[in-house]
Amino acid sequence: MRIAIIGYGNLGKGVEAAANKAPDMDITGIFTRRDPSGIKSEIGTPVYSYDALISMKDEIDVAILCGGSATDLPEMTPELAANFNVVDSYDNHHNIPKHYEKVDSAAKSAGTVSIISTGWDPGLFSLARIYANAALPKGSDYTFWGKGISQGHSDAIRRIAGVKDARQYTVPIQDALNRVRAGENPTLTTGEKHKRECYVVACDDADKERIKEEIVTMPDYFADYETTVTFITQEELDENHGGMPHGGTVIRTGQTGFDLEYSNRIEYSLELDSNPFFTGSILAAFGRAAYRLSAAGETGCKTVFDVPPILLLPQEREEVISHML
Amino acid sequence: MRIAIIGYGNLGKGVEAAANKAPDMDITGIFTRRDPSGIKSEIGTPVYSYDALISMKDEIDVAILCGGSATDLPEMTPELAANFNVVDSYDNHHNIPKHYEKVDSAAKSAGTVSIISTGWDPGLFSLARIYANAALPKGSDYTFWGKGISQGHSDAIRRIAGVKDARQYTVPIQDALNRVRAGENPTLTTGEKHKRECYVVACDDADKERIKEEIVTMPDYFADYETTVTFITQEELDENHGGMPHGGTVIRTGQTGFDLEYSNRIEYSLELDSNPFFTGSILAAFGRAAYRLSAAGETGCKTVFDVPPILLLPQEREEVISHML
Repeated sequence: MRIAIIGYGNLGKGVEAAANKAPDMDITGIFTRRDPSGIKSEIGTPVYSYDALISMKDEIDVAILCGGSATDLPEMTPELAANFNVVDSYDNHHNIPKHYEKVDSAAKSAGTVSIISTGWDPGLFSLARIYANAALPKGSDYTFWGKGISQGHSDAIRRIAGVKDARQYTVPIQDALNRVRAGENPTLTTGEKHKRECYVVACDDADKERIKEEIVTMPDYFADYETTVTFITQEELDENHGGMPHGGTVIRTGQTGFDLEYSNRIEYSLELDSNPFFTGSILAAFGRAAYRLSAAGETGCKTVFDVPPILLLPQEREEVISHML
Repeated sequence: MRIAIIGYGNLGKGVEAAANKAPDMDITGIFTRRDPSGIKSEIGTPVYSYDALISMKDEIDVAILCGGSATDLPEMTPELAANFNVVDSYDNHHNIPKHYEKVDSAAKSAGTVSIISTGWDPGLFSLARIYANAALPKGSDYTFWGKGISQGHSDAIRRIAGVKDARQYTVPIQDALNRVRAGENPTLTTGEKHKRECYVVACDDADKERIKEEIVTMPDYFADYETTVTFITQEELDENHGGMPHGGTVIRTGQTGFDLEYSNRIEYSLELDSNPFFTGSILAAFGRAAYRLSAAGETGCKTVFDVPPILLLPQEREEVISHML
């Protein structure tokens, strides 16, 4: 199948690397709203203007959208669903139903398939939740994120006056994890499950105490969390905090038995050296599924919950059943 | 939907407890090849002879098969697929393709849907493997079982002369787990991943040294494993080892990036107080999916890989998307 990569930030590179290694995928091109002449693919994939996309419609089986959820995808996914099978990683949980409706309407009118909100959360974590709920209808779900870099929180620190650069790690609180694993069934806020570790490069003349105070009191981002602020040099930041690791854990504890007398725990966890390359790999796999669903005559907006998992793999059905079942 | 439970051992009770609590299921009856008058359901479900099944066809939407993989299911699943939508937990990994063919042929001729090899391994563990392979096409899979009771190994010990009762726990070897988690990518035999802990009640006059020797040298079952044998009283066994706990861990380690330069780990684990009640709950959920696939016009044999996960839950689609995605 022929893949178009829409947007070429870190996630676009992740999709490119994954599709490049897939035995059944060719990459038609990278499509960007920036100046294509300023972008060079590491593996020589052609780079086109976003405006060229429609004219190349016949050379594209699936468009994989690699823009952000804040402003890009709410517009772009429905727009492209009117002409292409598409996959996105829309991750604003609260607005997913609205996004779903817009994309579904566009895709149904056009006779295309869209799969929205793929990646790992939403995505693999959502799948962990749905299967755990199927197996344990009575129980409680817990999601912990990290340890990993949060781009949004890192950006928020960088906007403070006197901050030259910053990285923020979201870190699960071990004691909260232990309580959940022990089946205590605690009620926990996001702030009771996570702490925030900030590494900050201050400008030479900046007041570090003021910066620290602005960070730890920042509403929504840090005020409700146990937050540590460590000032380091740019060299230390580049050397020790230059990557984009992430991960997390989904746990469901629940009861079975005639009198719900048996306790059970299902736990799913990820530890990723590179968040965008892992996420890109998942988007590519759901691109395969979108193509196959479309070839089977399906139309409209789908989620990861609607996709039979066998559609995600390039291997033959018999091989998958023999080796993975 | 109306469920028939075929066979009433521990797994049958597990399905009964789960279906009884499901908002969208009624249990038409338990069907047994034993004398129905000798069986009493804990919650008053009617018990019928297996021979009555066909005559009650119109009162059954899905038959959930709770027999064993050694002799019951290879015959029974294809036989019942000729008249019913069925779900089974066939777990002889090596023979799944053959079982699949026989069931598929019967179900296609009859226009019914069968879902085979549900449960947790095969089942939820298979799903963990397929999604992990989709996200990380380059990598290695590891499955650890336990800590949990193995019925087959407990039975093997009980067949030794002078043994009155026994329980065998399969226990993952922590050092092997740690090496896999650390990304060492080791090659490990089943015996290098697991040890076997045996709790044995000997007859009064039995030679314990001989029993121990017979256990640890038993081919296939124990000879290739680190095995401990502890002699205890019947009272100790009943009090401390009377349950059927189980669990396990599926790990995939794999690489992403243009040069596979990033390492990643996906881990899925279960810890279950009662293996049969958890497995029964999963069978009930796939019973729901079989009914829905059949209602949508599908026919033939399916596996857990073919089932869109949304079909497993009783909740409305919108609710699932809002709360679990």
